[in-house]
Amino acid sequence: MTFKHVNKGIKRVDAYEKVTGKAKFGADMEFADMLFAKVLRSEYSHAEIKKIDVSEAKKMPGVKGVYTAFDIPNNLFGVIVQDQQVLAKDKVVLAGDGIVMAAAESEKEAAAALEKVKVKYEELDGIYDVMEARKEGSLKIHEDKEDNQVIHHPLRKGDVEKGFAEAYLILEREYTTQLIEHSYLEPEAVIVVPNDQNHLVSVYGSIQNPYAARSAVAAVLGVELADVRVIQNHIGGSFGGKDEVISAMAARAAVMALDLDRPVKMVNTREESFTESYKRHPYNLKYKIGATEDGKLTAMEIEAAADSGGYACQTPFVTWRSVVQATGPYELDNVKTDTYGYYTNNPYTGAMRGYGSPQVIFAQESLMDELAEELDMSPVELRKKNMYSQDSVTASGQKLDGHTVSLAEVMEKAMKEINYEEKYKEYSKEQFGDKKRGIGLSISFRGCSLGAEAIDAAASLIQINKDGSAAVYSGLAENGQGLKTIFTQITAEVLGIRIEDIDYMEVDTTFTPDSGSTVASRATLIGGNAVKNAAEKLRKRIINFAADKFDFSADNLALKDGFLYDESGNRLALFSDLTQEMGNTGILLSAYGWYKGPEISWDEEKGCGNPYFTYVYGCQIAEVEVDTGTGELTILEMAAAHDVGRAINPANVKGQIYGGVMMGLGYGIMEELEVEKGMIKTKNFHDYLIPTIKDMPEIKPIIVENPDPDGPFGAKSIGEPTLELGSAAIANAVAHASGRRIRSLPLNLERVLIGRSLHKGGK
Amino acid sequence: MTFKHVNKGIKRVDAYEKVTGKAKFGADMEFADMLFAKVLRSEYSHAEIKKIDVSEAKKMPGVKGVYTAFDIPNNLFGVIVQDQQVLAKDKVVLAGDGIVMAAAESEKEAAAALEKVKVKYEELDGIYDVMEARKEGSLKIHEDKEDNQVIHHPLRKGDVEKGFAEAYLILEREYTTQLIEHSYLEPEAVIVVPNDQNHLVSVYGSIQNPYAARSAVAAVLGVELADVRVIQNHIGGSFGGKDEVISAMAARAAVMALDLDRPVKMVNTREESFTESYKRHPYNLKYKIGATEDGKLTAMEIEAAADSGGYACQTPFVTWRSVVQATGPYELDNVKTDTYGYYTNNPYTGAMRGYGSPQVIFAQESLMDELAEELDMSPVELRKKNMYSQDSVTASGQKLDGHTVSLAEVMEKAMKEINYEEKYKEYSKEQFGDKKRGIGLSISFRGCSLGAEAIDAAASLIQINKDGSAAVYSGLAENGQGLKTIFTQITAEVLGIRIEDIDYMEVDTTFTPDSGSTVASRATLIGGNAVKNAAEKLRKRIINFAADKFDFSADNLALKDGFLYDESGNRLALFSDLTQEMGNTGILLSAYGWYKGPEISWDEEKGCGNPYFTYVYGCQIAEVEVDTGTGELTILEMAAAHDVGRAINPANVKGQIYGGVMMGLGYGIMEELEVEKGMIKTKNFHDYLIPTIKDMPEIKPIIVENPDPDGPFGAKSIGEPTLELGSAAIANAVAHASGRRIRSLPLNLERVLIGRSLHKGGK
Repeated sequence: MTFKHVNKGIKRVDAYEKVTGKAKFGADMEFADMLFAKVLRSEYSHAEIKKIDVSEAKKMPGVKGVYTAFDIPNNLFGVIVQDQQVLAKDKVVLAGDGIVMAAAESEKEAAAALEKVKVKYEELDGIYDVMEARKEGSLKIHEDKEDNQVIHHPLRKGDVEKGFAEAYLILEREYTTQLIEHSYLEPEAVIVVPNDQNHLVSVYGSIQNPYAARSAVAAVLGVELADVRVIQNHIGGSFGGKDEVISAMAARAAVMALDLDRPVKMVNTREESFTESYKRHPYNLKYKIGATEDGKLTAMEIEAAADSGGYACQTPFVTWRSVVQATGPYELDNVKTDTYGYYTNNPYTGAMRGYGSPQVIFAQESLMDELAEELDMSPVELRKKNMYSQDSVTASGQKLDGHTVSLAEVMEKAMKEINYEEKYKEYSKEQFGDKKRGIGLSISFRGCSLGAEAIDAAASLIQINKDGSAAVYSGLAENGQGLKTIFTQITAEVLGIRIEDIDYMEVDTTFTPDSGSTVASRATLIGGNAVKNAAEKLRKRIINFAADKFDFSADNLALKDGFLYDESGNRLALFSDLTQEMGNTGILLSAYGWYKGPEISWDEEKGCGNPYFTYVYGCQIAEVEVDTGTGELTILEMAAAHDVGRAINPANVKGQIYGGVMMGLGYGIMEELEVEKGMIKTKNFHDYLIPTIKDMPEIKPIIVENPDPDGPFGAKSIGEPTLELGSAAIANAVAHASGRRIRSLPLNLERVLIGRSLHKGGK
Repeated sequence: MTFKHVNKGIKRVDAYEKVTGKAKFGADMEFADMLFAKVLRSEYSHAEIKKIDVSEAKKMPGVKGVYTAFDIPNNLFGVIVQDQQVLAKDKVVLAGDGIVMAAAESEKEAAAALEKVKVKYEELDGIYDVMEARKEGSLKIHEDKEDNQVIHHPLRKGDVEKGFAEAYLILEREYTTQLIEHSYLEPEAVIVVPNDQNHLVSVYGSIQNPYAARSAVAAVLGVELADVRVIQNHIGGSFGGKDEVISAMAARAAVMALDLDRPVKMVNTREESFTESYKRHPYNLKYKIGATEDGKLTAMEIEAAADSGGYACQTPFVTWRSVVQATGPYELDNVKTDTYGYYTNNPYTGAMRGYGSPQVIFAQESLMDELAEELDMSPVELRKKNMYSQDSVTASGQKLDGHTVSLAEVMEKAMKEINYEEKYKEYSKEQFGDKKRGIGLSISFRGCSLGAEAIDAAASLIQINKDGSAAVYSGLAENGQGLKTIFTQITAEVLGIRIEDIDYMEVDTTFTPDSGSTVASRATLIGGNAVKNAAEKLRKRIINFAADKFDFSADNLALKDGFLYDESGNRLALFSDLTQEMGNTGILLSAYGWYKGPEISWDEEKGCGNPYFTYVYGCQIAEVEVDTGTGELTILEMAAAHDVGRAINPANVKGQIYGGVMMGLGYGIMEELEVEKGMIKTKNFHDYLIPTIKDMPEIKPIIVENPDPDGPFGAKSIGEPTLELGSAAIANAVAHASGRRIRSLPLNLERVLIGRSLHKGGK
C-alpha cells in the first residue's frame, strides 16, 4: 500500500499560526464588554464554613457581582459521582475548593474584592494518607457515604494459593508513587458569553473535553444541552488535566455571565492552577509474585490503593485501567488483584496521561527486575519467558488475537537501537569509583481507547465547498498532540486533494455530536476512523458522479493530487471542477462520519472480559549514570520502541515519543508535589521541578508498524504509551548501576543517595 | 391527516428575544478591539476619476487605514456578470459607487477622514432612460460591452400574427412602473473579524444570502471558500435587498480587517442605504392583446424593458421571471414576448420581493380590465373565460398538472369574503359627488422557488443531544419571515417533541453546505423538505432502536409529545430516555437533510419549457374610494386569497399576507424614488413615502389549502405572491370608481387627479 499523504511526516497544519502567535488560546480571547472573574479558595483542606461575609467585597470598585453557593442554580456536579460543589457551601474537603467568586471590570478589581471577603472556618481533622483513609472506622470525609472508599475493582483468575504453592520463589514488595502536576504550559482559561448566537451561553477556552464542559454547564444552570455551546480554543497542553477543572470554571463563569448579561473571563494564574487542578493519583502498591526455578510465573497477587483526594472525579475509571495492566504483559494462570480508590483531604486526582498505568507499570516492571535478580536470570530472559505473544490470554481472560502482538519485536528493536546486550554485559561488571552506569528496560501492553469503561464512538463532519476546498470537523480535540494534522492527512488521502485545501476546525459542540473525550490515546484510532468514514462517503459520491459523467465504471476511477484519473492514469477532470459541477447540480457535498469501536466486555464483579478491542506494545530502555557518592542521577540515553499500528505522521509520532519519554523521566526522577495537611507547598515551577532541556538524554524513538485491521490505515495509539514506561526502566537501570533498588517515585537525589541496596545483585 | 405542531398558528420561536431586545442584529454585534469604517461615494452618476488624494485623510485622528481600488486584491465582482467594482478605480457608473474607504477607532473619525479626501472627477454624459439606453448607437455605459443590453429573453408560442388576425378586438397599451426602495427597517450592517476560529475572516451581519457573501469575499480576497465563514445575524427585513450590497460591504470590510488585523464594522445610515443599495427594476411594458367578440384571447405580444441601472446584478434572472408570468394565468395559443434589461446610469436594480412579477402583473391585470371594458364584459367573466384550470398549458408550453390549479377557488373565496359581486354591481351604478367607490381584482399564478434559473437544492442539519434537546440548522435564512418557527414546527412534528426542546440556529456557512439564497419564496418548500428529510432520518433511527429494544415492529411505534407510543397508544418510553440510551450506545443522533426539487427545464433560445415544478395561485381584490376633486385615494378594504398548499403556520401565513398586501399597496399608490440624472433625491423616510398604519385598509387574508405532493406536509409558497397583485387590483378599482385608467405606478395624488379617463366605462 502506497500513500500520498498518510504515513508521511508532513509539517503540522497549525504550525504557522502557532509559530507566528496568531493562534488564539483561551487567555487571548477578547469579547466586547467582557468582565473578569476570580475565585476565593479555601484556607483549609478540611473545615466547616461557619460564615461568609461578602458585604465589603460588593462595595469594592469595579465589582459587578459577588457570588456564593447560594447563587448557583444546581451546586452539585461530577462526571461519575456527584460529589463536587461549584462553590463550597457548608464545608470544604480540599484546599482547592472555591467559596466565593467575584466578577469585575478588571482582574485586579475582582481579586481585590475577594480580599475583602471574610470567611469564618472551623477547621476539622483531616485524612492525608490513603492507608489511613481505608482503615475501618476512620474519619469520613463525605458524610453521606458509607466510608471513604470511592471504588473497588476485583480481578480473579485461577487460584493464586495454588499458584504460590507451585512457586520455587515468592517475592513480596511494596511500591509507592507520588502526587504530580500535569504541568501544562498554559494555565486554565475560560470565557463565557451570554446570549450568543442563539445559545443561552457560549463557552470558549482551554477545554479538553467540550462535551463534558457542556454537560456540566447545562446541569449547573439547569438548562438543556442545546442551550449551551462549547467551542474549543487552541490548547497549550492538557495531558488529561483540562477536563473537570475547566468544567467547574465554565459553570462558575456561566452563572456570572448570565446574571450580569456580559461575557465573563476567568484565567488562572500558575498558583491558582496548582491549587485548583486535579493531579495524578499517588498509589500504594503491594505485589506478591511467585515463579518456578526456571523463571515461569506461577501466580501474582496485587493490592493497589489510589488516593482520590477530596473528590471521586475519574478515580473509578483511572483505577480500572490499573486493573487491566497491573500484571504487566505476562502470561499468568493465577491472578488476584484488588484495586481501590479512597477519599482523603489531599488535592483531588483525576485523568492524567497514562491514566492509572504508569503507577502499576513502575511497580510491575521493577518487580520483574527484582525477581530476575533473585532467580539469577537476566531481566530480558525472564521477560521473554513470560511475556505475551500472539494468541496469549491476558489476566482478564482475553485472547490477544485479531492484531499483531509485537512485544518481542519492540523489545528487540529497542535493544538493538541502544546496543543493550553489550551495555548490559559491560555495566554488569564491577565498576570502580562513585560513578556507576547501568541499563534497564521495561515493557508494556496497553489497551487502546476507552475500553469497556465507556461507549467508544466518535463523529466527524466534512464539508466540501464548490471550489474544492474542504473543512473537517471532529468531535475530538486538538490538544497539541497533532490531531489537526493527522485528520487533515486522512482526509487528503481519501479525497486525493492537497493538504492546503483542507481547513481543520476546533471542536464546536453545535457542529458535531458528543464524541466523548479526547483521552485514552483514542483520537487517531476512533476519531481517525470517523474522519475516514466521512471522507469515504464523499469520495464515493464524487466517484459515482464522475463515473456517470464520463461513462466509466466507478471501480476504474481514482481521486489523486486534486484530479480525477482513469485506470490508465489519464487525468479526466480537476477535483474542483467536479465539486463545482456537483454543487451546481444539487448534490450534497457534506457528510457526517461516525465510528464505533468493536464490541468489548467487562464483568465488574469477576474482573474478567475483553476490556479493549486492540492493544499497543512498547519497550523503553534507559541507560543511566549514578553518582553513588552524591546521589546525582544522569540519564544518558533512552530508547523507546512503540508499535503504533501505522504512523499516520511519523514525525508527529516521534514528537509524541520525545514528549512522553520526557514526561516519564520527570515522573521517574524529579517531579513531586509537596503537600502538608492537604495544602500544596510547591505552587510554581521554581518550587515544583519538571525536566528542562538540560535534563534530556539522547532519545532514540523507534516506530514499529504492524497495521491494525480496526485502525484507520492501520493506525492505533501513541500518546500515553510513551509516558508509562520510563520510570521503571530508569529504576531498573539505577538498580543495575548501583545495586540500589528504589521502590518509591521519584528517584530523586536523596533516594538515589540513600536508596536501600537490597543485595549485591548480579554485579 | 391530523397534526400536532404543523398547521398550527403557534407563537414565533424568536418572539421572546425580539420583543425583549435580546436578539442581536448586525449593528448590535460588538467585538473587542473593533474598528469602524465608512465609504466615500461618488458625487456623480457618471464620471471619470482623474485623481484621488487621500494624504490628508490618512493624517486624521483615529484613522488606521484609508483605501482605494488599488488596495483591493481582486476589485471586480458580480454574481452573474463581473461588472461591479469593490471600489471604483477610473470611472463611476452610478451615484452609489464607492471610491475610498477608511477605518478608524470610531465611526465619526472614519467619516471625518473621508471628508478630507479629494477626488477629481470629469463628469460624463449619462443615460437615465431605459428607452434611450436601448437605442442603437447610444452612449455605452460599460465600454467593454457591445451595447447597453444586459439581457434579452424571447418567448414564442404559436403564431401571434395569425392570432391577431383571428381577433375581433385588438388592444395596445403601454404601462410603466417606478424605481422603489426595499425600505427594510434595518439598514445594512456587516462586521468582519480576521483570523477568527480558524478562518481567515469571519463575517457577521444583516446578510440575506450568506453563501453569496462568502463567494464574493473569497473572490475579492483571492482565497478559498473554506477560508471565509459567514454567520447570519437577526435581520430587520431584507425583501431581496441584503444580498449584493452586503457582499460588497463584506468584501470591503474584509480587506480592511485583514490589513489591520482587527475586526472592522460597517453600518450604513439610512441615507447611505438609500444611496448604495439596489432597487426594484422600473419597467417599460408594451402590451398588445387580441380577443374574440365573446372574450376568448387569441394572441398576446409583449415587449418589456427593465432598467438595470449601472450594473447587471440580478437583471438576467429578474427579467426571466417576468417572461414566465408576463401573459398572466391565461390560456393563449399565440404568444410573443421579448423581455430586455439595459444598463443606465441610474441606481442599479436587483432582487426585490416579487422579482420581476409585480411589474408585469400590474400591466397584464390592468390590461385584462381594459379589455373587459372594451368587450363590455365584467372583469370576472373575462378572466373566467380564459384563466388556467387543471391541466391547462402555459405560454411556455408547460402542462399544469401534478398540483391543484386553484385559480377558480382563490377567486371565488376572495370575492365571497369581500362581497365582490354586490359591491361591483353597486359601484358600477352612477355615483354622485366627488367621492366615488370602486372595486377591482387581479389574479396570478406564480412559479414556486428558483425554477430553471438556478439549481434548486437546500441542506439542513439536525443534531439531537442525549437529553433529547435538538438543534436545527438550515442553509436557508430567517429574514424575519418566520422560517425558524416553520422549521421548528416541522422538526417537532416529525420527531414528536416539544417546540421548546428545539433550538433553531442562524445560517453559518461552515455548518451547512451552500443551499442557495433565501429568495423566490422557496424556504418553506425547499428548505422545509430538507429539514423534514433530516428529521425523518433521525426519527427512523430512533424508531428502529426502540423497535429492537422493546421487540416491536417499527411500523407499530410512534413518537409523539416527547414519548414513544405503541399502536394501542401506550407510552413505552420518554423520548429523552431513548436518546440518552442511544447516545450511550454509540448511535449517531445527527443527520444532514437534503432536498433537490424535481426536474425542470428551460430553453432560453425558444423561451419554452417547464420552468417551475409547481405553482401557487392568488387573487387580491381592492375596494377604493377616489376623491375625483382632490385625487385623494383611500383603500377601504382588500381581500387576499392565496393557495399555499398547506399552511405550516396559518398565523404566520396571515402575517405574510398582511405585510405583502401593505407592500403592494405602497408600490401601487405612493412609493417612488425621485432621481435626477441618476442622483437620488429622496434619501430618507421623510422624503420617500411608505405606507404607515394609517394607510392600511381592512385586510381580509384568506388561506387556501390544496396540499402539494412535492411540498413538506403539502406546503408551497407565500412570501412573494402576496405582494405582486395589489397594484393592479387597486388600479382596476380606481378605474372602476372614477373611470380614470392609470397606466403608470404609483397611483399617487397627481395621477389620480389628472388620470386620463379613457372612456366612461361600464358605469
